[in-house]
Amino acid sequence: MASDKQDKQFVTEITPQSEDFSRWYIDVIKKAELMDYAPVRGCIVFRPEGYAIWENIQQEMDRRFKETGHRNAYFPMLIPESFFQKEKEHIEGFNPELPFVTEAGGDILEERLAVRPTSETMFGHMYSKWIKSYRDLPVLINQWANVMRWEKRTMPFLRTSEFLWQEGHTAHEDEKDAREETMRMLELYRDFVEDFLAMPVVMGQKTPSEKFAGAVDTYSIEAMMKDGKAVQAGTSHYMGTNFAKAFEIQYLNRDNELEFTHTTSWGTSTRLIGSMIMAHGDDRGLVIPPKVAPTQVILIPIGPPKMRDMVIERADALYAELKAAGIRVNMDDRADVRPGWKFNEYEMRGVPVRIEIGPRDIENGVCLLASRLGGDKLTVQLDNVVNEVKQLLDDVQKGMYERALEFRASHFHSVDNLDEMRAQMEEKRGFFLAGWCGSEACEETVRAETGATSRNIPFDPQEHKSTCVACGEAAKHTVVFAKAY
Amino acid sequence: MASDKQDKQFVTEITPQSEDFSRWYIDVIKKAELMDYAPVRGCIVFRPEGYAIWENIQQEMDRRFKETGHRNAYFPMLIPESFFQKEKEHIEGFNPELPFVTEAGGDILEERLAVRPTSETMFGHMYSKWIKSYRDLPVLINQWANVMRWEKRTMPFLRTSEFLWQEGHTAHEDEKDAREETMRMLELYRDFVEDFLAMPVVMGQKTPSEKFAGAVDTYSIEAMMKDGKAVQAGTSHYMGTNFAKAFEIQYLNRDNELEFTHTTSWGTSTRLIGSMIMAHGDDRGLVIPPKVAPTQVILIPIGPPKMRDMVIERADALYAELKAAGIRVNMDDRADVRPGWKFNEYEMRGVPVRIEIGPRDIENGVCLLASRLGGDKLTVQLDNVVNEVKQLLDDVQKGMYERALEFRASHFHSVDNLDEMRAQMEEKRGFFLAGWCGSEACEETVRAETGATSRNIPFDPQEHKSTCVACGEAAKHTVVFAKAY
Ligand SMILES: [Zn+2]
Ligand SMILES: [Zn+2]
Repeated sequence: MASDKQDKQFVTEITPQSEDFSRWYIDVIKKAELMDYAPVRGCIVFRPEGYAIWENIQQEMDRRFKETGHRNAYFPMLIPESFFQKEKEHIEGFNPELPFVTEAGGDILEERLAVRPTSETMFGHMYSKWIKSYRDLPVLINQWANVMRWEKRTMPFLRTSEFLWQEGHTAHEDEKDAREETMRMLELYRDFVEDFLAMPVVMGQKTPSEKFAGAVDTYSIEAMMKDGKAVQAGTSHYMGTNFAKAFEIQYLNRDNELEFTHTTSWGTSTRLIGSMIMAHGDDRGLVIPPKVAPTQVILIPIGPPKMRDMVIERADALYAELKAAGIRVNMDDRADVRPGWKFNEYEMRGVPVRIEIGPRDIENGVCLLASRLGGDKLTVQLDNVVNEVKQLLDDVQKGMYERALEFRASHFHSVDNLDEMRAQMEEKRGFFLAGWCGSEACEETVRAETGATSRNIPFDPQEHKSTCVACGEAAKHTVVFAKAY
Repeated sequence: MASDKQDKQFVTEITPQSEDFSRWYIDVIKKAELMDYAPVRGCIVFRPEGYAIWENIQQEMDRRFKETGHRNAYFPMLIPESFFQKEKEHIEGFNPELPFVTEAGGDILEERLAVRPTSETMFGHMYSKWIKSYRDLPVLINQWANVMRWEKRTMPFLRTSEFLWQEGHTAHEDEKDAREETMRMLELYRDFVEDFLAMPVVMGQKTPSEKFAGAVDTYSIEAMMKDGKAVQAGTSHYMGTNFAKAFEIQYLNRDNELEFTHTTSWGTSTRLIGSMIMAHGDDRGLVIPPKVAPTQVILIPIGPPKMRDMVIERADALYAELKAAGIRVNMDDRADVRPGWKFNEYEMRGVPVRIEIGPRDIENGVCLLASRLGGDKLTVQLDNVVNEVKQLLDDVQKGMYERALEFRASHFHSVDNLDEMRAQMEEKRGFFLAGWCGSEACEETVRAETGATSRNIPFDPQEHKSTCVACGEAAKHTVVFAKAY
């Protein structure tokens, strides 16, 4: 497709994944202008090309939240330090990462105000004012917001000091209702990530040492990156009455008795952007699933200068037709850039489908479709082009999911003891399924010896392991271990 | 419609506008659950009913931004203090209102980080890295974000320590292009506020003392509240090369010479919610324009208990039909609440159209429509209900704009000197058109003597005044003065 020389130009600018995966990642997101580093430690700018991915994620996820009865709200970003003290585990978990506003309007504040790392405490405080009776329940509120966690090690999109996310906070009459909500939102996340971002995930429960600070139970979905590492793509927490007790969220039940509500929270963030990139990208650059791609189709008119006007005129009509059909299409009709260079550029940017159209094609009433997944170009009839493009976008979406599923299957290993696990991890990347006796010490041994942490206890593991990978005692759980971002 | 007793119940909970307009405002937004006070000074919680208004504003405005070639991005919230020092007027304007993060992750920061009050400096810093050549221009980026200004006096939605807004920041080759953008966005705001929020505005230029800190020229749209006070509903600034020089945003022009870009910025915020409420509300509560109303139609089934199932069944079908037609409809079929109480409740919440349907109506193939603007109920055929409802929503939208326009006309006064202005302001509320010589001292005299500030110099005043209202010298400008939120 592209000349060797042009290929080389791109190749030298993007580090191959096999050489240095992190370098590849940074090269790609910088070159595709998804982000830039900001002049504040650990912060990035979400540039328009990157932010547009987030907007698509937001729009679709928000639709699903509302379909399941949730409403959006906005709570203050600054949280009095004393609020964090009310739930002991919560402050222990978040204290090391809190930025504090201590001065405002020229005055030193009497109480330090934390920039929210998450908003259980602020929601808890307000819910205690709003909830009086079982008639007020459930309360199902979500918030789209910025949050800050002063991280030691950062990685664009995956771990930044400030990031964007949504956090749902719900209050319920009893445990059953709250646990149902916890699972409903975990399942919503699973379906969204697999369907929309084409990333297969492992759904399961976090071990106690990895659960959210203040939760009774934490559940997660874990996705595999192309370097075999895991990314926690979403979490859902059942809080029991922990936060209700800390913030006195009480209600009169159906028997007119005062009771604590049961609460949940659940969140996903802009790290979905980073994980989507690491799960699908290749040495030519980004590969973005059609459903989330800001540009789904790039249209490139081709031909000698003397035919240019004629070709552009037909391409304009084609562009309008695709746009009218709801397809996110862009046209690149720059005269001073060669087609081969454009092909490389939009491949690097991860645009799922490319259309080429030239004088000969127009004569024959056709155009060419190329998929970002590779393979032969398709010659399609211009009078059926909308259907053909929609079909190809569907195929790419499905193909990306299948490819990611195959990759995961071939990087999912089963191990019986630490020696085996260490040996395998020297040779192989990926997820390691292992038995676990349930002791925190054994989890820590695995981490210290291999660098892998427990990702979750999958609801539906490929096999059930019978002995603990660390101590050899009987396994209580089968756990996915992996290195993680 | 409602019984006297029920009327009184609502009336006692909402202070009449004529008695105390600010109290009326607080009563209404609390009772309608648009907001609640937060446990941080000057901050509020945007509750779902209030936030849904913001979502509708965002969605429509965002559509218009994109239509005019803008893209969204997200820039860091924390801005190094030194950035503010780079533009002298800018720091003088914003310094008194800045909250600072001084500690994070357990450490005292080397440099204080301001929570953004606006982001010219951060955009400027990044633009200087991205813009190299005239080929990169114009840059047209908008951001939806939270910002903070540590205000001394606060008022929910209108002036809060933290608020939500959009800020556009653009960079251009020359003054002409930048000034065109400044006016394009001001006009976009005018059309949005008049068309969508049904609020007529005065479009004009701010006097030097009222312009944005760091701008060459500031333009605004000013809306009139029902107490006659003004709210600045949106601003658009031409920055000249002030920020380009402060942040070294330079580019190679078409002659290959290094030049400074010309920049603009423009913004609107959640104060649009507050001004919409104050411009339209009445003693019965909120009156929300249909285009922005989260609930456009409330459907209330009526009838004796034995007919209830039959009525609800027909109402369900009606609900589904309206929803399918894209109308934001809710149904209140609570059996234990009387219809009269519901009527009052949804009037208080400002729902533009109410539908009542009972057994006799169903027999006759009709239902009743009531408008929040009052007047007779309409009896409409069920088989034409979608068209009738759409028509009535249009009528309410137009009627609200007309009503606001008439209110403004009857509260727009013309004055020639300070004595006259003082006398009129003791009797009348509203906007005061007056001549101004252009001296800051005269502006200050007006403020000190009357409490009114210069709102703007309208592009198209009803009349041109010839002498300065304060000093009697020849007027350079005709200015709108008013008390303002
Ligand atoms: Zn063990
Ligand atoms: Zn004067």
